[in-house]
Amino acid sequence: MTASRGVDMRRQNLALVLGEVADREPLSRAQLAQRTGLTRSTVSSLVEQLLLGGFLTELGATASGPGRPANPLQLNRSGPAGLGLEVGVDHVGACVVDLAGQVRAQQTAPSQHRDREPAVALERAAALAVEVTAQAGLGVAAVTVALPGVVGHDGVLQRAPNLPRWADVAVSDQLSNLFDGLPVSVGNEADLAALAERWFGGAPADFLHVSGEIGVGGGIVLDGQLFAGPGGRAGEIGHVVVDPDGPPCSCGGRGCLEQAAGQEALLRAADVPDVAALVARGGEPRPAAAIATAGRALGVALAGAVNLLDLPAVVLGGLYARLGAPLLEAVTVELSGRVAARPVQIRLSTLGADGALRGAATAAVREQLRDPTVRVV
Amino acid sequence: MTASRGVDMRRQNLALVLGEVADREPLSRAQLAQRTGLTRSTVSSLVEQLLLGGFLTELGATASGPGRPANPLQLNRSGPAGLGLEVGVDHVGACVVDLAGQVRAQQTAPSQHRDREPAVALERAAALAVEVTAQAGLGVAAVTVALPGVVGHDGVLQRAPNLPRWADVAVSDQLSNLFDGLPVSVGNEADLAALAERWFGGAPADFLHVSGEIGVGGGIVLDGQLFAGPGGRAGEIGHVVVDPDGPPCSCGGRGCLEQAAGQEALLRAADVPDVAALVARGGEPRPAAAIATAGRALGVALAGAVNLLDLPAVVLGGLYARLGAPLLEAVTVELSGRVAARPVQIRLSTLGADGALRGAATAAVREQLRDPTVRVV
Repeated sequence: MTASRGVDMRRQNLALVLGEVADREPLSRAQLAQRTGLTRSTVSSLVEQLLLGGFLTELGATASGPGRPANPLQLNRSGPAGLGLEVGVDHVGACVVDLAGQVRAQQTAPSQHRDREPAVALERAAALAVEVTAQAGLGVAAVTVALPGVVGHDGVLQRAPNLPRWADVAVSDQLSNLFDGLPVSVGNEADLAALAERWFGGAPADFLHVSGEIGVGGGIVLDGQLFAGPGGRAGEIGHVVVDPDGPPCSCGGRGCLEQAAGQEALLRAADVPDVAALVARGGEPRPAAAIATAGRALGVALAGAVNLLDLPAVVLGGLYARLGAPLLEAVTVELSGRVAARPVQIRLSTLGADGALRGAATAAVREQLRDPTVRVV
Repeated sequence: MTASRGVDMRRQNLALVLGEVADREPLSRAQLAQRTGLTRSTVSSLVEQLLLGGFLTELGATASGPGRPANPLQLNRSGPAGLGLEVGVDHVGACVVDLAGQVRAQQTAPSQHRDREPAVALERAAALAVEVTAQAGLGVAAVTVALPGVVGHDGVLQRAPNLPRWADVAVSDQLSNLFDGLPVSVGNEADLAALAERWFGGAPADFLHVSGEIGVGGGIVLDGQLFAGPGGRAGEIGHVVVDPDGPPCSCGGRGCLEQAAGQEALLRAADVPDVAALVARGGEPRPAAAIATAGRALGVALAGAVNLLDLPAVVLGGLYARLGAPLLEAVTVELSGRVAARPVQIRLSTLGADGALRGAATAAVREQLRDPTVRVV
């Protein structure tokens, strides 16, 4: 064993105290002792460590009760921050979020990765990260990267359908090297976008997030937590079959949702050159018909997911959120007719295109709050 | 609070000791103290209570080590048993399992329930239960009922597609009255059949069990536990869409798996009068084609489930297990082609038709082992 029981207990208690402050700041030491059930002297010692680590700051002493001074504590907005990175098929993004969950700086930039070596994209993302971190003026203590593919628990991107040269890429290790040893976690972009919907998009505790992109991404949240499945790769609604004899798919199957409602299929059916044109001309007959057809396919796939997982809510994100009411209506009609016995809330995401990126940065911050002993670089 | 912390702790420790004996019997008190980390006097007191409750028996003293006597303990095969009941569309079943998990008596009997009041079926099941319990010669302490419909946490059968007169039936309460207050749990038959596959059918820790019956039942097991979903109704693969424009389904949708691979669809497509004929004549052209078509539909629906839940294994039960290799082959070809990047184990159930019933009885026994303070009637 590398950590003794006492050390583990100390870490747990640090996280407990920090979590209380995060939920209810400002709090005095006395209030913390009351809320946590720890003794005042233990709380004082834990708070001391959290102050030294830069996680908390102490406000000026104020009077509380009959003459006793209290020094309320709050999260340190200048403390160790979380860095979120996104490596997409055609862009990179970086976002710095402070301990209180506020975005302090954020940028995305076009960057074509489809037929290039992974190192190109990772170096581009790292360069943007340096820029954004400098802009935020905070020290970053943890990094989470959103990736458009299957990631393992070991920080490896196993495969990415739309990044054919990425196979078993040790993204965590490579980025950690670029960042002088900073801890780097990786996550699937659709999973992180789903968590973002839960954390600051108003989504309920149980839902499926389906996002229209070049692929169709899906993330499942159950009881407020990501449902990753036995192998960590759950949520791939893009490869649920909506037309058994439909067109071949990159996954090896036929008639997957992605072939009926992915970005390329939508643009082709609508006969428009890009997403901006699809959104702008959504009322014209051919784009409108394409959106309705995609909506029905989404409804069919979502009906299966709702019946299998017993989900009470669905959030439509990415391209789907931009297509708005016409898509929502088509999905709702199809889905509701197929899950008659289960009321399902169907809504559009309000987060916009940067959900995955903000989810990644927030995940990095939450990791800090769970284990406030990580070093600050 | 109705239970103090001390009482809760005592219950936990009773279950801990009983669980150790269940896993590794026979065990001496000294071995129990060592395994549980409890003191010998605590173990002795807990064992005393478990002996009095009839959960354990003591074997004759044997020598262990240098001359010290030990009285090995084992589960009491004559102790409080579990009763499983099954109320199907056209049959009832009862099964008594002893504390060690052995079936001690079991019967099923035809009984038509489709257009009759729920009370008829429940009284029929209760009568059979009395008969089977007498045959087993054991006292029953807990009952679990397998039902072909949606059950709530409150012991109510909310609806059952093939039992139209059953709507919001308080099955637990009604049966508990018939059984003089005995605790009665209810479960979905497909869920209990899935658990049975895990407990004694050799299924892995993560899988989906799909069972061909009058409906198509599904149960999802993750990490060895039933995955019930946010509302307790997960696993309904019978209403995953395999043909968006297919025939209307009892659920209100169209082209659900049940319409393509349910018993009625199979018999109609094969042009045979019943399941026995389908099994006997499976090699003839029309039945063979019907089985292949149903297998492909199953493969399509299962591909969606595997992609959504990231499942490494699938078990085909009920009618599907009876159809054997030809069905397995059709499912395997279709499913494997659609989940190329995920190796999926596909197998036939070996449990036969009584999986749900045995699952129900075993669930009742396991409930006893988890909380060995329930009274024995």
